[in-house]
Amino acid sequence: MMLPRSIRLVEVGPRDGLQGEPTVTPVEVRAQLVARLAAAGLRHIEAGSFVPEKLVPQMAGTGDLIRQLRPLAGVRLSALAPNLRGAREALAAGAGEIAVLTAASESFSRRNLNCDIRESLDRAAAIAAAARAEAVPVRGYISCVLGCPYEGRVDVERVADIAQELHGLGCQEISLGDTIGVGAPFAARRLVERVARAAPIESLAGHFHDTYGQALANIFACLEVGLAVFDSAVAGLGGCPFAPGATGNVATEDVVYMLQGSGVDTGVDLERLLDAGAFICACLGHPPQGRVARADAAKRARAMDAHPSGGGR
Amino acid sequence: MMLPRSIRLVEVGPRDGLQGEPTVTPVEVRAQLVARLAAAGLRHIEAGSFVPEKLVPQMAGTGDLIRQLRPLAGVRLSALAPNLRGAREALAAGAGEIAVLTAASESFSRRNLNCDIRESLDRAAAIAAAARAEAVPVRGYISCVLGCPYEGRVDVERVADIAQELHGLGCQEISLGDTIGVGAPFAARRLVERVARAAPIESLAGHFHDTYGQALANIFACLEVGLAVFDSAVAGLGGCPFAPGATGNVATEDVVYMLQGSGVDTGVDLERLLDAGAFICACLGHPPQGRVARADAAKRARAMDAHPSGGGR
Repeated sequence: MMLPRSIRLVEVGPRDGLQGEPTVTPVEVRAQLVARLAAAGLRHIEAGSFVPEKLVPQMAGTGDLIRQLRPLAGVRLSALAPNLRGAREALAAGAGEIAVLTAASESFSRRNLNCDIRESLDRAAAIAAAARAEAVPVRGYISCVLGCPYEGRVDVERVADIAQELHGLGCQEISLGDTIGVGAPFAARRLVERVARAAPIESLAGHFHDTYGQALANIFACLEVGLAVFDSAVAGLGGCPFAPGATGNVATEDVVYMLQGSGVDTGVDLERLLDAGAFICACLGHPPQGRVARADAAKRARAMDAHPSGGGR
Repeated sequence: MMLPRSIRLVEVGPRDGLQGEPTVTPVEVRAQLVARLAAAGLRHIEAGSFVPEKLVPQMAGTGDLIRQLRPLAGVRLSALAPNLRGAREALAAGAGEIAVLTAASESFSRRNLNCDIRESLDRAAAIAAAARAEAVPVRGYISCVLGCPYEGRVDVERVADIAQELHGLGCQEISLGDTIGVGAPFAARRLVERVARAAPIESLAGHFHDTYGQALANIFACLEVGLAVFDSAVAGLGGCPFAPGATGNVATEDVVYMLQGSGVDTGVDLERLLDAGAFICACLGHPPQGRVARADAAKRARAMDAHPSGGGR
């Protein structure tokens, strides 16, 4: 099996993470978070989304956010657009990438995107055309690739067909999302192997949630078949610690720990990443959800007990 | 890479788990827990340990426990013995296996076993001889195989040497313990590959703690090189939810979920296992630590909200 020497992490905490938090985070704090993530070495960050404020107040002001953050050198700032209007706003603000959404399950598409899969793909095509005109890359998300909360099992062939269409309409990257975190590693790997026959594996990314604790094992299993891009969220944002079982994206810290410990380069400084997670969690008023962050916090607490006069990590 | 069709889980919750809990669980409750685990399909259960009650009150009455549980058909009841006296008590009670402890780090051995590695191996040899005289199998644990809290890095060659010696002195199974949960999957796999040249891989088991969230990925990585026995604890027992970062064994539920979802047989009924975890956690007064158990609890809570008159799972 081939093993990538280095992988790219797509940090989705400021969007997929924060939009799932009960607290609305002000634009200034979101900007600081993105800047800290960039300083930790993350080079591809989904910064926000252009959805109506009344639907997702957590994402209000994403245009201002992107404008503030544009000077960040070497960082691709992605923004989600649900439709062409959102995409035009994202392009006007200077987003470095537009993300579009579809799903592998009709029920999920209707409930989450308020349209069927066909229409979501048509919207994606229109957005891709508008982005191409400005030479801005487009990233496609497919939700529910390993299971749907309404339909249960999802057909691998359907995921492959959708990935092929997204690739054909101009998505340079297609993120395969196990939105409800039900997939186990062999299933995740089989999916990637199948989809890689429909769209080049270099254009695919894995997006795992840790609901059933499978995310790292899934990433490892997919790494071994050559997948080299993974989505994750600092501090496991999006999982609400007050609602047990409502888990967010896999924590970036946990992914970085696994890869560093396995000799795979991520370009990320784990200490700085932990600091970014501690920063946003202090603002949100709950502890980070990742295992590495929790272990690190416990270690620091023990060190403080042992040396009450010492400070910091 | 070869993949085992089925794997054997060694349930260590009633010993390695409960001894790390702040609450002392009465023998009757421990007996019920083991019976429930057996009913869920676990066939190899570490039931307790013959250590002085004043040192580990959580394990008091293990002799009575083993005697009560002996009628359990088809279940290997293992008991840990720190020395020859403990082993004789275990044999007198009718334990189906004696577990012995050593470590791959001198500092950890001295602090945890109160002797150096050499002496722990001599004790193991004496215990193995006593057990062999009664045709009872012996299981050896090596602690800190992927890192030591006092020494940091641990030499893979040392782990291989100790495993070879344990195998030579009559341990039919040798459990490689990442006691502090620091190992990442490539490191875990490299270790297993090296140790398998010193002792047959059929005699090796993986014992992972989930401190840094790596346990399932480590199990998956080791499965792929033919390791087919893994230790785990129902509900992730031994990790105290009130002391963040003090994490226990990987939760049996999470391992079973991963393997079932990957088409690997474990012989375990996940629903019954979740019930056993809910039972012991109700007694301990804290929620289960595994992800699957948390997701399951959340799912049931949502179902109860939706159908307030309905009950159960």
